Amino acid sequence: GPANSTESLNNAVESSLPGFDVTMDGKLRIITLNKPTTKNAFTLGMYVGFAKLLKDAAEDPNTTIVAVTGAGNMFSSGNDLTAFTSFTGTVREAAEEGKRCLNIFVSSLIDFPKPIIGVVNGPAVGIACTILGLMDAVYATDRGWFQTPFSALGQSPEACSSHTFPKLMGSLKANEMLFFNKTITATEACKLGLVTSVIPDANFQSEVWPKLKEWSELPQKSLVHSKELSRQFDRELLHKVNEAECDRLLERWQSSDCMEAVMKFFSKNAK
Amino acid sequence: GPANSTESLNNAVESSLPGFDVTMDGKLRIITLNKPTTKNAFTLGMYVGFAKLLKDAAEDPNTTIVAVTGAGNMFSSGNDLTAFTSFTGTVREAAEEGKRCLNIFVSSLIDFPKPIIGVVNGPAVGIACTILGLMDAVYATDRGWFQTPFSALGQSPEACSSHTFPKLMGSLKANEMLFFNKTITATEACKLGLVTSVIPDANFQSEVWPKLKEWSELPQKSLVHSKELSRQFDRELLHKVNEAECDRLLERWQSSDCMEAVMKFFSKNAK
Amino acid sequence: GPANSTESLNNAVESSLPGFDVTMDGKLRIITLNKPTTKNAFTLGMYVGFAKLLKDAAEDPNTTIVAVTGAGNMFSSGNDLTAFTSFTGTVREAAEEGKRCLNIFVSSLIDFPKPIIGVVNGPAVGIACTILGLMDAVYATDRGWFQTPFSALGQSPEACSSHTFPKLMGSLKANEMLFFNKTITATEACKLGLVTSVIPDANFQSEVWPKLKEWSELPQKSLVHSKELSRQFDRELLHKVNEAECDRLLERWQSSDCMEAVMKFFSKNAK
Repeated sequence: GPANSTESLNNAVESSLPGFDVTMDGKLRIITLNKPTTKNAFTLGMYVGFAKLLKDAAEDPNTTIVAVTGAGNMFSSGNDLTAFTSFTGTVREAAEEGKRCLNIFVSSLIDFPKPIIGVVNGPAVGIACTILGLMDAVYATDRGWFQTPFSALGQSPEACSSHTFPKLMGSLKANEMLFFNKTITATEACKLGLVTSVIPDANFQSEVWPKLKEWSELPQKSLVHSKELSRQFDRELLHKVNEAECDRLLERWQSSDCMEAVMKFFSKNAK
Repeated sequence: GPANSTESLNNAVESSLPGFDVTMDGKLRIITLNKPTTKNAFTLGMYVGFAKLLKDAAEDPNTTIVAVTGAGNMFSSGNDLTAFTSFTGTVREAAEEGKRCLNIFVSSLIDFPKPIIGVVNGPAVGIACTILGLMDAVYATDRGWFQTPFSALGQSPEACSSHTFPKLMGSLKANEMLFFNKTITATEACKLGLVTSVIPDANFQSEVWPKLKEWSELPQKSLVHSKELSRQFDRELLHKVNEAECDRLLERWQSSDCMEAVMKFFSKNAK
Repeated sequence: GPANSTESLNNAVESSLPGFDVTMDGKLRIITLNKPTTKNAFTLGMYVGFAKLLKDAAEDPNTTIVAVTGAGNMFSSGNDLTAFTSFTGTVREAAEEGKRCLNIFVSSLIDFPKPIIGVVNGPAVGIACTILGLMDAVYATDRGWFQTPFSALGQSPEACSSHTFPKLMGSLKANEMLFFNKTITATEACKLGLVTSVIPDANFQSEVWPKLKEWSELPQKSLVHSKELSRQFDRELLHKVNEAECDRLLERWQSSDCMEAVMKFFSKNAK
């Protein structure tokens, strides 16, 4: 596993891209979010990069299972908000580029044909939390917490969370996160179905990786067929939900609600 | 909140109708079921009245969130069974009028575009329980309990509960309520996903209302978009389910199963 | 109930078939899996036989509720793997016959119009576990455990479990069973929604049967309508899922993954 950096280096695969480390452990492919300066936040480039990494994983006959984890203490802080301030074009152009990249990123998860497992080594915020609903299993350290502050930032749900979260948790529980910015612990997330199981932080790495490696030795066709069966009748709807969510965000990202919230975020963090 | 009757009177809005109090607390609109003689049971007139109140709430730009609660110790005892005995026309006409009013009532909940939250201050029976599945969050006092005695009264599910309850609880849990008249506590309802969270009765009013008022200050478009995203791909099916349920009830209300059960109910209560 | 063998004999109905006992207790019809030599495993003949028994139950006006239970200490060990070794034709013919029988069996559960309840008196493996997701309620002894070793046997989900398990448990929990062969206890199954409630083994028979008999006295039309409402908008999809699962299994049963796994199973059991 990625906890052992020597092993990681030895098994590094060439398909890695800025912001990610990609390693193989037998037939288990591990994608590690690695951008310490922004707590593994996703830039627009990383959205497209991640989709490229999944394409590689899908095409590699030696990859049976993909794990996604984070370097350091966070899983990921979510969407890199500097995208809102650093873009050189108009606000509309920035929002459209954001929408395009987000759509590619989420589509790649909807269509990924092999089991993909979240190894949540710390807090997961925003898009780093919502993508878990498109994965096949999620293991979280008890240090983790989960937050999707959409309306607090003048935004709205993404990564099909408006569909997957109600399906996983029931709508009456999901809406506290989706509408009202509720933060939940890993234990709460596990009760609600957003996390498959929680592992004490001290044992997290040593418990998760051997299990995943063992599973990656199972018959690949059985796993791929099982995933396809559970995804195929939902896939068309998931793509529609992704489109609808991206359309809403295109409007939201250009709204004063969003601009003011993002400005407030940066001025608070600058203090 | 409605616990403070002076404030309620001060903020009373003109749109109120028989059986309801309607008040504003900032951008939070509170609809209180208030018919002490029948423990807040819904008459046919109240079904249509409630739909009218939701139309007002949807159209008012100053309303961000709607809360529904009950006056006194009950949330509501459900459908007012005197509709079965007081109607002046034929049984078929009574059943058809019941179906028409129920359909309008449930449709208004399916289509309501803003977050609507159940503030369940006591037991919720029948339709007062089933409508919770069409709301966006439900907070319940620990004094509350939940019951849908459909087959005990020779009837069948309504308010889309044949769809929402299995979605919230899983079918194997939901059917104990939907088929077999099981009564559950607030704590059980919370585990099953029919209640977002349970609050001790002593703190219920003081905990719920400030939270809801705070949420009503969130960006309205973020809330409306979030709700639309989670409802839009389910709305057509919900209307079909409502139609199907109303059709079944039209038959049930004219059946001897139902008539005998209702007669038994009144003769038991008359003792 | 079937615990009382004298009563069972007295109430035996003529429609029983090899591998099953069928008895009536008032309006409650009890189908008992009874094949001690293979721990109540389903042969191909039993798949078709079970569908025939459900047809009888649907057509009998005196049957309100059907219960399915197992004789002895097991509920059922699942698919009788000797079907793979005893068939006289080609592997392809064996797989096609298996697919045909499985499809009939699962279809009969999808279409059954009355409440059907699992009375899980012991461990439920494979198809005996997956069919529970198509039932309307499931009561399990605390001695029970649940396992669907699809990929361990080179196979893939069946009985619509690729649809019902994620719906009941949430996909992130369900996939540990569906993809990765996880065994769960009755208590875990209850938390996950695969079991309605768990009963201590000492009281299991004495608690379950009176409750089911009482429910069988409820108005039959209310029960049938309630079931139809909760099934009708899902039925078409369930049949599609069944078809897709059977197609996948047709391929899997002819694969070397499956053959090797079944051989290993028999050689291990032969020691």
